[in-house]
Amino acid sequence: MTYRLSLNTATTKHWTLEQAVAGAQHAGLEAVGLWRDRVAEAGLENAARIVRDAGLRVSSLCRGGFLSAADPEGIAAALEDNRLAIREAQALGTHELIMVVGGLPACSGPSSAAIPDGDKDIVAARRRVSERIGELVGYAREHGVRLVLEPLHPIFAADRAVLSTLGQCLDVAAEFAPQEVGVVVDTYHVWWDPQLADMIARAGREGRIASYQICDWTLPLAADALLSRGHVGDGYIDFPTITHWVTEAGYTGDIEVEIFNEAIWDTPGEQTLTTMKERYDLLVAPYL
Amino acid sequence: MTYRLSLNTATTKHWTLEQAVAGAQHAGLEAVGLWRDRVAEAGLENAARIVRDAGLRVSSLCRGGFLSAADPEGIAAALEDNRLAIREAQALGTHELIMVVGGLPACSGPSSAAIPDGDKDIVAARRRVSERIGELVGYAREHGVRLVLEPLHPIFAADRAVLSTLGQCLDVAAEFAPQEVGVVVDTYHVWWDPQLADMIARAGREGRIASYQICDWTLPLAADALLSRGHVGDGYIDFPTITHWVTEAGYTGDIEVEIFNEAIWDTPGEQTLTTMKERYDLLVAPYL
Repeated sequence: MTYRLSLNTATTKHWTLEQAVAGAQHAGLEAVGLWRDRVAEAGLENAARIVRDAGLRVSSLCRGGFLSAADPEGIAAALEDNRLAIREAQALGTHELIMVVGGLPACSGPSSAAIPDGDKDIVAARRRVSERIGELVGYAREHGVRLVLEPLHPIFAADRAVLSTLGQCLDVAAEFAPQEVGVVVDTYHVWWDPQLADMIARAGREGRIASYQICDWTLPLAADALLSRGHVGDGYIDFPTITHWVTEAGYTGDIEVEIFNEAIWDTPGEQTLTTMKERYDLLVAPYL
Repeated sequence: MTYRLSLNTATTKHWTLEQAVAGAQHAGLEAVGLWRDRVAEAGLENAARIVRDAGLRVSSLCRGGFLSAADPEGIAAALEDNRLAIREAQALGTHELIMVVGGLPACSGPSSAAIPDGDKDIVAARRRVSERIGELVGYAREHGVRLVLEPLHPIFAADRAVLSTLGQCLDVAAEFAPQEVGVVVDTYHVWWDPQLADMIARAGREGRIASYQICDWTLPLAADALLSRGHVGDGYIDFPTITHWVTEAGYTGDIEVEIFNEAIWDTPGEQTLTTMKERYDLLVAPYL
């Protein structure tokens, strides 16, 4: 039987790709989700070989995206970087390229001016993201790669992703075939959504669930909200229920643990993997 | 012509109710939004008299709610406190009682235990909130008060409000008459919502917009996310666009500035009022 738990390498941030692969293999996992920084560090061909030699699946590559720029140079740079990410995904043998689409373009941080004059038109930024996805889909298809839209928690709407809900991602995806554009269900980002049950079911019906990522919403928020994630079970998310919905929707792929958290990063990777497996066995696996 | 800008007393936190009323009046405002703590401090009858003598409208009373308890004692206490808030709203001469409905009941903070066993069933918590609203509506109607559901930003879904979107609040409100249950459009909480334009229009069609509250989403987040609000124009929110939507939806009532922010609280109230008016005149009033 397939063991579906996958280590996203962001969870063991201080491990090189080689260490993460060895750690996952040693822990009995069959898959890893890779981040591009660690792939670049190892070298693309070498990274692909390391994973292949270990006999692991690559559940996804994180990440493409940041497509909301309004200026020609910004648009060209984003398209070029995403084509590179698509080629990397192909070389690594994964079908799923996770896309964090980007925030408001000209509001990259807090302004000290009384009235910042950055571009705050979120409706237009979303339209540009859709257009860029359309421009990348053909290239991705040629490389056997699916663009996987990730809705990010609305806490990140200003600076990181103007796609905030699963329904919104499905609306963007609807223009394309399911094997071209998918969505990821990341519990941390979507657990609060009143339409979550319906939208997971819809994503399943439409054949678009490309990844299920799990980590918990903990409080108080970390000083850097990006790092405010916890192990499954340490926070407020109802994993049995959401896992049940994802299962009912027909998803049978890998389940990645992706945690950004300083304290977990400072924990030995082996221990993190042990905790991951315990929590998965207790709060996720029984509901698959 | 009515001047629609209203000072919510949370914005000038260090002012007593009497000081806030005097400050608002001196600044040429015609309305104040009151918090119950400052009303209690002044005494209900006295507070009502102070506002009446100043000739100001009370745009809303903040707040009732916290209705998500699952235990009989918690439910009874919540209903009792909300009936008190309803009587206070009537005494103060406002029709609009803002309701922050409460978060997950048994997850009141971070747990040091490995696997907290609190109640994480957000679907059930939402159902209880709807039931409690139903139990309060008759009492509110008898007192000429409308229960105004406030969707809170999903950052607060765990600990403060299981209603996160305007659409969700409208769905809860749909069981009741528009004069019984309304909604508030608070830019800070809803600006990111991909369905915002549609849901503001729907709220208008259904006659449920009871209040329009304005403040900005600023970054980085404050250590206490609750206090991470800025003056209109200091952050990422597109006030002209949202104000246009609210206007098109037919809202003609007061527009409250409600800001929780330590730096603004430490600023003399007169200066805060000056900034409020400048920003309102620049980014809101032209779009009404």
